[in-house]
Amino acid sequence: MPGPARLGDIVAALAPAFGGELVGDADLPITRLAPLDEADATSIAFLANPRYASQLASTQAACVIVAPAQRDAAVARGAAIVADNPYLWFARLTQWWAARTRAVAAVGVHASAVVEAGARIHATASVGPWVYVGAGAEIGPGAVIGPHGHIGAGAAVGEGTRLAPRVTLMDACRIGARGIVHSGVVIGADGFGFAPEVRGDDQHWVKIEQLGAVLIGDDVEIGANTCIDRGALADTVLEDGVKLDNLIQVGHNVRIGAHSAMAGCVGIAGSAKIGRHCTAGGGAIILGHLELVDHVHITAHTVVTRSILKPGQYSGLFPIDDNASWEKNAATLRQLHTLRERLRALEKRSPAP
Amino acid sequence: MPGPARLGDIVAALAPAFGGELVGDADLPITRLAPLDEADATSIAFLANPRYASQLASTQAACVIVAPAQRDAAVARGAAIVADNPYLWFARLTQWWAARTRAVAAVGVHASAVVEAGARIHATASVGPWVYVGAGAEIGPGAVIGPHGHIGAGAAVGEGTRLAPRVTLMDACRIGARGIVHSGVVIGADGFGFAPEVRGDDQHWVKIEQLGAVLIGDDVEIGANTCIDRGALADTVLEDGVKLDNLIQVGHNVRIGAHSAMAGCVGIAGSAKIGRHCTAGGGAIILGHLELVDHVHITAHTVVTRSILKPGQYSGLFPIDDNASWEKNAATLRQLHTLRERLRALEKRSPAP
Amino acid sequence: MPGPARLGDIVAALAPAFGGELVGDADLPITRLAPLDEADATSIAFLANPRYASQLASTQAACVIVAPAQRDAAVARGAAIVADNPYLWFARLTQWWAARTRAVAAVGVHASAVVEAGARIHATASVGPWVYVGAGAEIGPGAVIGPHGHIGAGAAVGEGTRLAPRVTLMDACRIGARGIVHSGVVIGADGFGFAPEVRGDDQHWVKIEQLGAVLIGDDVEIGANTCIDRGALADTVLEDGVKLDNLIQVGHNVRIGAHSAMAGCVGIAGSAKIGRHCTAGGGAIILGHLELVDHVHITAHTVVTRSILKPGQYSGLFPIDDNASWEKNAATLRQLHTLRERLRALEKRSPAP
Repeated sequence: MPGPARLGDIVAALAPAFGGELVGDADLPITRLAPLDEADATSIAFLANPRYASQLASTQAACVIVAPAQRDAAVARGAAIVADNPYLWFARLTQWWAARTRAVAAVGVHASAVVEAGARIHATASVGPWVYVGAGAEIGPGAVIGPHGHIGAGAAVGEGTRLAPRVTLMDACRIGARGIVHSGVVIGADGFGFAPEVRGDDQHWVKIEQLGAVLIGDDVEIGANTCIDRGALADTVLEDGVKLDNLIQVGHNVRIGAHSAMAGCVGIAGSAKIGRHCTAGGGAIILGHLELVDHVHITAHTVVTRSILKPGQYSGLFPIDDNASWEKNAATLRQLHTLRERLRALEKRSPAP
Repeated sequence: MPGPARLGDIVAALAPAFGGELVGDADLPITRLAPLDEADATSIAFLANPRYASQLASTQAACVIVAPAQRDAAVARGAAIVADNPYLWFARLTQWWAARTRAVAAVGVHASAVVEAGARIHATASVGPWVYVGAGAEIGPGAVIGPHGHIGAGAAVGEGTRLAPRVTLMDACRIGARGIVHSGVVIGADGFGFAPEVRGDDQHWVKIEQLGAVLIGDDVEIGANTCIDRGALADTVLEDGVKLDNLIQVGHNVRIGAHSAMAGCVGIAGSAKIGRHCTAGGGAIILGHLELVDHVHITAHTVVTRSILKPGQYSGLFPIDDNASWEKNAATLRQLHTLRERLRALEKRSPAP
Repeated sequence: MPGPARLGDIVAALAPAFGGELVGDADLPITRLAPLDEADATSIAFLANPRYASQLASTQAACVIVAPAQRDAAVARGAAIVADNPYLWFARLTQWWAARTRAVAAVGVHASAVVEAGARIHATASVGPWVYVGAGAEIGPGAVIGPHGHIGAGAAVGEGTRLAPRVTLMDACRIGARGIVHSGVVIGADGFGFAPEVRGDDQHWVKIEQLGAVLIGDDVEIGANTCIDRGALADTVLEDGVKLDNLIQVGHNVRIGAHSAMAGCVGIAGSAKIGRHCTAGGGAIILGHLELVDHVHITAHTVVTRSILKPGQYSGLFPIDDNASWEKNAATLRQLHTLRERLRALEKRSPAP
């Protein structure tokens, strides 16, 4: 872990690409990034939401990243970095900070790795201990395959993409450049496809071998233990910039459009087509063979049972209540259709004037 | 990857066991299997659902697998394979195709594997790199244990069963013949069992060691990152032909009857007994200590809160709507019981004649 | 596997610490623990719920653990262990039984492990095959790291904590003493954090590097394939005695209070603060930036959409029904707000006297 960074050096490193003006003492030592209310005299904090502007007066931060509108209030209390989009500037700062403080993976192939014939591993890539690289696989420049990784035959990992320890990329599956894949992810397991066959009194399931693959674009991040199944005939596709959280299931032949983001525990059934810039909250389920156009947003724990052809927010979750109230309402819900019939009957007996 | 297959050779390989009559040019070269609307002049496609019969006229496929009813329409456009059940014939074809095109795992035990004393590995089995095989474990004829597999002490893998890379089969757990287990699966982790103990003001959880195992029948497929817990005292059981998709949780002492199939993200709590030929849609939850008889079908995202003793389809999911409509309906739902009371009061004031 | 245990020896081993009086033949041989209705003449069973007292007469068990109230009925049929809390005594017995019958992990570091400079592994710890131990990591006395484990740089595993095969503990994450972590768990993957950036017509997601870690207390158990993300700036925290089942997602900066327990497939979004002694049923979702006070219990498959400041049970799940009934009620639910308006109109026309 390196020592403190000089505030002026931080701004000098980021400002040419991302803007941001330092107001205050460039010599302040910075040891960490922190939320406003936990920051100390060697912390940088940020104010993104004007609702929290009152915290400016009380924060102990050495320096606060603020929008131009908060410039005066921020400067009144100490050093400030004034940026058009403080949250985005902060995001860039976390990247700079991580690059400064984290160990770099050793370039080269660990002696314990198994590399099959015909695999091509770029000289600047890092292949960790106990990594399997199948025949004909390609590992691009600067890519990092963490320990216990599995890169199947004919699979490909793009430039600068990092696989955490213990990631499975099955045969013929491909991920583009600058991706991040977290531990436990499985890309390219078989999709769930069976043909029913009646044998006597029994119905058996006959496996449909999954002959497609998974194609993943650039700048995609995939959370821990998420699964993306290979296609049945054609491929499962994640376009550029898609972000998936942990424990997500993506079925075979799904397509997720560019820059769409899914929260944890989402399930997407086979052959669903999801547009660009869509989002889904935690635990949402998207059934198969549906289409969602661009800019569709699904609330947490909602089930998408039909195609959605108009952008917007869609919801369907049961409201939480204390258990006793819920029980009464849930019981009544099971008679809801009958209630409606009774209401109709009443309306007939007591018509509107 | 081998070159094209001759259409006549494909049919000759499958017809003796599965029927199917080739009508057309047996010499056509086939390079892939494809959906009707993506097929090209070297593709085989299939028509299973008569609703898509209109695609027969426009498909570019070299050959289409059809039912006898579509024979004339299919033959009018080119080669056809006429089979009683085109979808099932297609499933068999995918298996033949996969066997033809995929690399076969090397027989034998990789030098990096660790095999404890008393383990029995059949001479025709394949044990990949960095596989652990515990004391007394058994690996059957033709079984494949992919890289990074863990076969616990006394565990058993049946004939021809294939474990993808990175599968955990804990001590004393057994899987039968012809199974397929995908990457990241954990079979035999501890069930979730604790006895509460009050200590002063606190309630602590005292672990109940899980002394049972997991017993899995023949022809079972288990999807990526699915978990099947070992039993507390008796065993957790999956009968023959069960198919589980990805990211499914099966609690301790569950029994799943033969040929039942569960979609992704399903959760089955401890000691649930599920019949034969049941299905559950994605994200369904089956609570513990319940019984489902044979041929029960649970809709996606439905919670089974009571035993189901009659075959049929059961559902309980909140309908999706645009967010504004949902908000209004959800808010009213929290007053549903009161609405019912008001309706009753009205009915008393305005009785049916 | 050792031979039978003598009943008297079992009680002698547990009674000094946990109480329990043996009534009956101390020389009975015991070969297994079993449920009342599956027990045989060499089994110990237990009766925790007085509702099942009628099984006492019919069980074949050699010995039954009972509360003082069932003493006479139990003794009338054979040997008995009388304990104030039979279920808790049974839990202790399972621990004793497991310790007696299970193989002990070999102390020391397996030759195939990779241990980076500056890692400290206690002489009594067990580090299995193909384990990676990063720079500066610490493995405490008696800790067990199963095969294929990954212990990141600066991470720490406390005394007596056992990691099953294939567990990932990322850099700087810490778990305390006597913990149990099951196979496939990922602790310390990146939280899901991005700042939106508009580029032309597109909105891109700019990664916020996750600079915090995960801190886990003592006596914590974590189920298979569960994920606990590292914090963005501060840490994600699990306090002492927390029990998590399988396939649970814990987002960044979550805090779970001591002795809280979560069932399988639960999802907890970022920055949620959960009190002590809370529980959540399977598939429940807790949205981000919420607070649950101590002793809050969430029913399975319920979504917590607001803070809960009062102890109690909270629910929100759609009742299951046969599909046809559900369809009618669900369709009506989408008009519920309108029904309420119609009811209001009727009430105006037919006012209460």
